[in-house]
Amino acid sequence: MASPETVVSEQELLALAVRALVAGGMAEEDARLAARVLVLAEMFGLRTHGILRIPQYLGRVRVGGIDPKAAVAVNRVAPGLALVDGKNGIGPLVGMRALAAAKEGARAAGIGAAFARGSNHFGPIMPYCLLAAQDGFASIIGSNATTTIAPWGGRDTRVGNNPIGIGMPDPGGEPIILDIALSVAARGKMRALRDQGKSMPPDWAVDKDGKPTTDPAAGLAGFLLPVGGHKGYGLAVMVDLFAGMLSGAAYLTHVQAWDKNPGLAQNLGHFFLAIDTARVAPGSWLHDRMSDFRSILLSTPAADPSTPVMAPGERELAAYRRGQRDGVRVVTSDLKEVEALASAS
Amino acid sequence: MASPETVVSEQELLALAVRALVAGGMAEEDARLAARVLVLAEMFGLRTHGILRIPQYLGRVRVGGIDPKAAVAVNRVAPGLALVDGKNGIGPLVGMRALAAAKEGARAAGIGAAFARGSNHFGPIMPYCLLAAQDGFASIIGSNATTTIAPWGGRDTRVGNNPIGIGMPDPGGEPIILDIALSVAARGKMRALRDQGKSMPPDWAVDKDGKPTTDPAAGLAGFLLPVGGHKGYGLAVMVDLFAGMLSGAAYLTHVQAWDKNPGLAQNLGHFFLAIDTARVAPGSWLHDRMSDFRSILLSTPAADPSTPVMAPGERELAAYRRGQRDGVRVVTSDLKEVEALASAS
Repeated sequence: MASPETVVSEQELLALAVRALVAGGMAEEDARLAARVLVLAEMFGLRTHGILRIPQYLGRVRVGGIDPKAAVAVNRVAPGLALVDGKNGIGPLVGMRALAAAKEGARAAGIGAAFARGSNHFGPIMPYCLLAAQDGFASIIGSNATTTIAPWGGRDTRVGNNPIGIGMPDPGGEPIILDIALSVAARGKMRALRDQGKSMPPDWAVDKDGKPTTDPAAGLAGFLLPVGGHKGYGLAVMVDLFAGMLSGAAYLTHVQAWDKNPGLAQNLGHFFLAIDTARVAPGSWLHDRMSDFRSILLSTPAADPSTPVMAPGERELAAYRRGQRDGVRVVTSDLKEVEALASAS
Repeated sequence: MASPETVVSEQELLALAVRALVAGGMAEEDARLAARVLVLAEMFGLRTHGILRIPQYLGRVRVGGIDPKAAVAVNRVAPGLALVDGKNGIGPLVGMRALAAAKEGARAAGIGAAFARGSNHFGPIMPYCLLAAQDGFASIIGSNATTTIAPWGGRDTRVGNNPIGIGMPDPGGEPIILDIALSVAARGKMRALRDQGKSMPPDWAVDKDGKPTTDPAAGLAGFLLPVGGHKGYGLAVMVDLFAGMLSGAAYLTHVQAWDKNPGLAQNLGHFFLAIDTARVAPGSWLHDRMSDFRSILLSTPAADPSTPVMAPGERELAAYRRGQRDGVRVVTSDLKEVEALASAS
């Protein structure tokens, strides 16, 4: 059964999120940056990474696990390269500062990168890829995460279900954006099945002894299986090498689990790569090629005519445009929780 | 039954490959670059992308499909960004020129990229990642390919089984390198099963009508399934957007199939990203963290004690070191074919 929903405008939702984050201790300028990411996530339909993260982040602020007033520091070590110290700030704030640093590098050198340490959960990646694309930047962005995956052939959780996002702008059209984690399924989906008393497919996770299971509770106590076996394992490792190891952040089992130790700094790491497509060719050239590329994908005959072929991110971007036009559908209880935090100021 | 093998030294194999490529029309300097990639592939144990590609490439040269004397052109459009026109040259030559351009950009700006068009099959990616790592560069490299995958939910092959490689150097130790394509299985493995009269697992491919099959011949006539369903499809799309669309090369169904039209230019595209890790931190810092990272992975208890957990690329790098020490085991018939080409000069 669906939860009751309320429709609010994008601007109202943004203003509300900013008020809640400011009430939680953030400076208004910083709160605007962080709220932008979470409201975009909400509008994309990525609700597990949307506004319900505000109470979660501020809960960690209250127990001293996150510093809402962190002065994120950007150290430019080369024209295209910046190292970002998040100083244990709110994750999407660190993410937005790192994105800005990567874009600045790309404006100077054609391609730019920012490696961020001392961070926390930074929301989904799709909002960053969209914001990069709106300024003409192609992007590759990744983060490490608490360990939930076993190395391929192993039976202990030592790798995070690390997300990676990749975006390509289409000047005058919609970008194509992929945002995936590297497990077959998300822990959130397993929690939902557990709460509904249902079983899960056998390739989602194994139990704590590494044995196959279709019990979502046993899978949650065990570890997630990566897509494509050694391929997904390998991708998760490489994302952590860029996001955690090279950035100077924690990596693998050194990452603190926020749900187990909410009062400890996680020291998560992210990487942001941005390419200034205007330096490659004029926007009209890019738009023509993106239009052709997209039409080749979308005109593929569907295996099931009721579910046409889509481009990566198409569903989320369509939801975003609907939300801008008709208002954003928010779970009412999520909205009330954020309203309560906002009015506590 | 294994094919008869001959052991040759790395230097002998390199010299032989150079002679064969020069006999096929390449300048000696260019042949050295291309041979380096294919001999490294052979030493990694990636034989389907090793020296047996020399007769294949030169076969296309003979029918006018590849220009062995192509003057690969590098156009630096920003300190960190270069556009490479392969002029329909031998793929690994174009790849090596693009890698050099990406490294040059990274030396100047901390991070560098090269986008290459007008290319051909460029070997496996692991050799490029190793060569980058030996000079201290982290790398992300991808190529598009002939279409063999259907968009997720579609029933027509419109996306290539596009490979992506990611490498991280360890100064004083071995790098960690991932090199994967995005299908569950490779067409080469399906061809091998077909030739042996065996069946294949049901998740490798579907037949030409999009129906499940365990017949490798039917799968080869149909299309490959991507890892993780929409996730592998999405990654294959994004690799083509960077390697083909943004580079100015052909993409998706515009890519010519070399096996069907060996005399036509494929206009494949690649992208090379390189990050100068020396600008991030000293090599001793990186080595300490890479050692710790690797030991966390390798000390994971194995599900099956006879197959310990490995880091990405570990098997191939171990084979490479064995080959350097004890000589390279090459399939004798492959060696004879290259020797015949070399002595034709």
